[in-house]
Amino acid sequence: MTVRFGLLGAGRIGKVHAKAVSGNPQAKLVAVADAFPAAADAIASAYGCEVRTIEAIEAAKDIDAVVICTPTDTHADLIERFARAGKAIFCEKPVDLDAERVKACLKVVAETKGKLMVGFNRRFDPHFAAVRKVIDEGKIGTVEMVTITSRDPGAPPVDYIKRSGGIFRDMTIHDFDMARFLLGEEPVFISAHAAVLVDKAIGEAGDFDSATVILETESGRQAVITNSRRATYGYDQRIEVHGSKGVASAENQRPVSIEVANADGYTRPPLHDFFMTRYTEAYAAEIEGFIAAIEKGATITPNGEDGLKALQLADAALQSVKEGRRIRLG
Amino acid sequence: MTVRFGLLGAGRIGKVHAKAVSGNPQAKLVAVADAFPAAADAIASAYGCEVRTIEAIEAAKDIDAVVICTPTDTHADLIERFARAGKAIFCEKPVDLDAERVKACLKVVAETKGKLMVGFNRRFDPHFAAVRKVIDEGKIGTVEMVTITSRDPGAPPVDYIKRSGGIFRDMTIHDFDMARFLLGEEPVFISAHAAVLVDKAIGEAGDFDSATVILETESGRQAVITNSRRATYGYDQRIEVHGSKGVASAENQRPVSIEVANADGYTRPPLHDFFMTRYTEAYAAEIEGFIAAIEKGATITPNGEDGLKALQLADAALQSVKEGRRIRLG
Amino acid sequence: MTVRFGLLGAGRIGKVHAKAVSGNPQAKLVAVADAFPAAADAIASAYGCEVRTIEAIEAAKDIDAVVICTPTDTHADLIERFARAGKAIFCEKPVDLDAERVKACLKVVAETKGKLMVGFNRRFDPHFAAVRKVIDEGKIGTVEMVTITSRDPGAPPVDYIKRSGGIFRDMTIHDFDMARFLLGEEPVFISAHAAVLVDKAIGEAGDFDSATVILETESGRQAVITNSRRATYGYDQRIEVHGSKGVASAENQRPVSIEVANADGYTRPPLHDFFMTRYTEAYAAEIEGFIAAIEKGATITPNGEDGLKALQLADAALQSVKEGRRIRLG
Amino acid sequence: MTVRFGLLGAGRIGKVHAKAVSGNPQAKLVAVADAFPAAADAIASAYGCEVRTIEAIEAAKDIDAVVICTPTDTHADLIERFARAGKAIFCEKPVDLDAERVKACLKVVAETKGKLMVGFNRRFDPHFAAVRKVIDEGKIGTVEMVTITSRDPGAPPVDYIKRSGGIFRDMTIHDFDMARFLLGEEPVFISAHAAVLVDKAIGEAGDFDSATVILETESGRQAVITNSRRATYGYDQRIEVHGSKGVASAENQRPVSIEVANADGYTRPPLHDFFMTRYTEAYAAEIEGFIAAIEKGATITPNGEDGLKALQLADAALQSVKEGRRIRLG
Repeated sequence: MTVRFGLLGAGRIGKVHAKAVSGNPQAKLVAVADAFPAAADAIASAYGCEVRTIEAIEAAKDIDAVVICTPTDTHADLIERFARAGKAIFCEKPVDLDAERVKACLKVVAETKGKLMVGFNRRFDPHFAAVRKVIDEGKIGTVEMVTITSRDPGAPPVDYIKRSGGIFRDMTIHDFDMARFLLGEEPVFISAHAAVLVDKAIGEAGDFDSATVILETESGRQAVITNSRRATYGYDQRIEVHGSKGVASAENQRPVSIEVANADGYTRPPLHDFFMTRYTEAYAAEIEGFIAAIEKGATITPNGEDGLKALQLADAALQSVKEGRRIRLG
Repeated sequence: MTVRFGLLGAGRIGKVHAKAVSGNPQAKLVAVADAFPAAADAIASAYGCEVRTIEAIEAAKDIDAVVICTPTDTHADLIERFARAGKAIFCEKPVDLDAERVKACLKVVAETKGKLMVGFNRRFDPHFAAVRKVIDEGKIGTVEMVTITSRDPGAPPVDYIKRSGGIFRDMTIHDFDMARFLLGEEPVFISAHAAVLVDKAIGEAGDFDSATVILETESGRQAVITNSRRATYGYDQRIEVHGSKGVASAENQRPVSIEVANADGYTRPPLHDFFMTRYTEAYAAEIEGFIAAIEKGATITPNGEDGLKALQLADAALQSVKEGRRIRLG
Repeated sequence: MTVRFGLLGAGRIGKVHAKAVSGNPQAKLVAVADAFPAAADAIASAYGCEVRTIEAIEAAKDIDAVVICTPTDTHADLIERFARAGKAIFCEKPVDLDAERVKACLKVVAETKGKLMVGFNRRFDPHFAAVRKVIDEGKIGTVEMVTITSRDPGAPPVDYIKRSGGIFRDMTIHDFDMARFLLGEEPVFISAHAAVLVDKAIGEAGDFDSATVILETESGRQAVITNSRRATYGYDQRIEVHGSKGVASAENQRPVSIEVANADGYTRPPLHDFFMTRYTEAYAAEIEGFIAAIEKGATITPNGEDGLKALQLADAALQSVKEGRRIRLG
Repeated sequence: MTVRFGLLGAGRIGKVHAKAVSGNPQAKLVAVADAFPAAADAIASAYGCEVRTIEAIEAAKDIDAVVICTPTDTHADLIERFARAGKAIFCEKPVDLDAERVKACLKVVAETKGKLMVGFNRRFDPHFAAVRKVIDEGKIGTVEMVTITSRDPGAPPVDYIKRSGGIFRDMTIHDFDMARFLLGEEPVFISAHAAVLVDKAIGEAGDFDSATVILETESGRQAVITNSRRATYGYDQRIEVHGSKGVASAENQRPVSIEVANADGYTRPPLHDFFMTRYTEAYAAEIEGFIAAIEKGATITPNGEDGLKALQLADAALQSVKEGRRIRLG
């Protein structure tokens, strides 16, 4: 069986998914839609698919699944439309920046028995996935503490910051999902600490650029997330999971692993400077996982519920910062 | 000039300092005192010094300085006595487990213009000291976030735990001092999160064995400390300081740095399994720093005030855990 | 401009190149030929190209270039035929196991002004290429010593060994090319030392499984190559270039870079266990380089002359082992 | 029992051994002799021992053992004298630069049933010793190939070079001993390749500054030694032992193990820049081993025979370079 795809949104991340779908032997990219015809045409000509309207893709009989890469504020509406149209849906995170809107959307997905995967690509990073496998195999015993270091190479433009929903909903949300992926228990408490250290303009826009968040589960397990919008040395993405029998960790990744030594010391190149090169393998594996789940009729993970939970953690983090106290979740 | 020493307490840590003093060309170990004659005799015969009573050392004209390695509950009294006797004092941490008692003791030190160094040996670890030097040289710009990983190889006996003052006053206190050493600003907020994950008996004794603490300064700098009473892979002691221009970090230390690779992978030996072997160089450098300060009449660091501040952070950490909120310091 | 390709040989390495050509936006895979119809069909259906005979590809007007992945003993004949047919040629190494045959073949390429690239893929490995870049930028000064560690995960079947031309022509040949790529001067002396340590059957087949080779240039630069047909920990591929100002080195690669620590120590997974996964990026970059050279009319590197020189080093290595002495080249 | 020592030679290495002897609880430094009274006085006052003449030490009843740190050309004579005087002897390498002189000297040692240790300190380096332990425990199976990287931080003065006996007898001799320590079989063939790349003045003095040496045993095991008189990044001392089941390696050592990362990459400090700081632990362990052997009446290793064999390898290496061929040993 071949899964036939429609792509909604032909921007930066749309191109990534177009390539992943086209390169997958179990999938075929049938059509692409975008508000900018030139963007859609580029993908159509590169991968030999048609340009169609969203409505046409919705109605198409030759399309089984869609990948939603449109602007965030269109996600929930499109999910509802395509769930009703009976298409399997892969949607870039987040479903929406408002938790109530997400809940309403997931209700429609549930009512229509829709299949929805949410794009928390990091679960599919081979290194992070290997850490999870080590946990599942019992090699480090019972999980006790997860530490996630997540620092962006550089801050996005303030215009982006203003529309982003804030650092917790835009950036930490990936780490919230990773913490849930690794903790093995749902967090029941959250404490967040945020500051403006990188760029005053971010503070003036009402957001933070540096943060530490602690999640605690009922049994006392902890996840510690540290974030910064700047890392001069590249995209800093590390995880460490301490258990009763040992610790598993995933190191940083760099484009080339060479070392040059001279009188000044031993120097290795900076890390990846962009999330798309850092997570190239993760993006491909994510779509592969989506296709495999559709083909086998398997449960889709991460799903809409995972998207909602990460968003609720982001909301609670913001509340914790504002109130200077630990927040009980749920 | 040679600094002539009396050693008070001939136990485990007393032996470490006896060796450091004896091996230092600017110092001489003149006498040792201990409630157990056999312990004092062992040091006397190994290093060629006399056994004396504490009173005799207090009154001795051939002794310039003392190293206090007696049980914690005697520290404050001995500091006061030897400050009044005009001896320079090196005292193992803590001065006392009660902040009010520490304050009273430091008042006596101030009144007698006493010289007091408190044994936060980690400041003298060559690797941590090198990180501090990198900061001082401006190589990483303005400090923004300090992360301290501090995990003991194994939990002490519950009897020790009961007398220890609890994890924050016994274990984290070193990390509080290290955070102050590296942050470059005094913390104004503290939030602590603790759990019993390693040993239920520790919980039954009213203490915790796992903890995360966040310190925040007025300008928003953060220090994140993670602690556990257990690390199967050895004594995990890492620091990482993120600044506006980069990051400086100190790696873990192991007794031998070899690697064996076979079909199961690449394996390096576990870390040091004991604080004394991990911090051998730090203990020697600490006494060296004390002697140098006495000889040059230089300011002693870390001093009683540093001891007090670390203890106050420990007290506030406990309050934060109990009240589930961030505590404003001072 | 799009370069239109014919693929000769649809085996293991043929599939790798089919994928690389198909995935390259400047190239198109037009046809595939193989003695086994099923193999050709598989590639044709996976990448949407035609199955043709070698003769048809030779005569085709819609084909600009060929990739030769057929058995070694057909390489030289095919290069001559396609050079005469005016096609650009990418040929897997070696051109032939006999240096005289290679010379005759290259004469035809020269007479027909043919374009020929020889598949020394390792030059295109991003890590090794980065080391070469460091040299070219002068960062390590004048090259003095190159060390190449090249150890296979496991020995091939003895049947393969018998047809391989021996360890120097089959395995070390890649390292000879890498040494020439990095030394910056042609070797004038070669000394080789070989043994049978891994598998007696290899010795009975008249070959060796372990070897060390020293190359020396006129000015005294050295390259040291160590080889083994077995490395339990994976495919060991390291280079180190020492110069007057410093050293540049390329580390080993593994599929996932995680680490698990427990009471037995710190363990990272084994290295890649197969040359195709280790050199995935190199294979793609190699074809990319071939296409770019054709498009720009640029000089092709590595070319037939590079293939010949590596083979001559292999021949001289065997002579050195047999005679127990250093051999002067050329 | 306490072993009572006389120290012959109070120069740089003499001080190292004076400290090691004084700090050892089973040993006592009784007397020191040196042609320069000031040098002897300095050690006498630092460690509380007497200054005596060599003759007095030879005749002394209160001295059990001597450490010979005088100039190389006095070693053999002193060994003979002190062997006849019944003292246990630790002698810095080499016994002599002339193999015949060494043989004659060892004959005297044998006749007098003398106890002689030769100062190949690297066997006692904890990291190299740990590699040997891994071999002895069978963890890497049968040894197949040993690679030794040994590069000095900087070339010694040409005056030193002229008296040194040449790179093989002065520098590589340590690596020859290490190769024998790790190979598990005696080498039967040696091939050496040397060049002048670092400093022309070294070449004008008739010596080399860069070299590669291959040792081969009867069964085909190989040791590959690479040497340079210059390493801008510090004292490069690595070993790697490949066996049938895996590989064991010892990494380089640096004074502080920190890392600083910024936009230029991740930088660790240079290695140790001096053999005395690199091998501090080895020097102490070596004397400890000598004392333990004397006390227990145990066999001394490495002994005079080890010194002779390393020298013979050095002589054969020079012959190999001159004749451009592999030399059969013994």
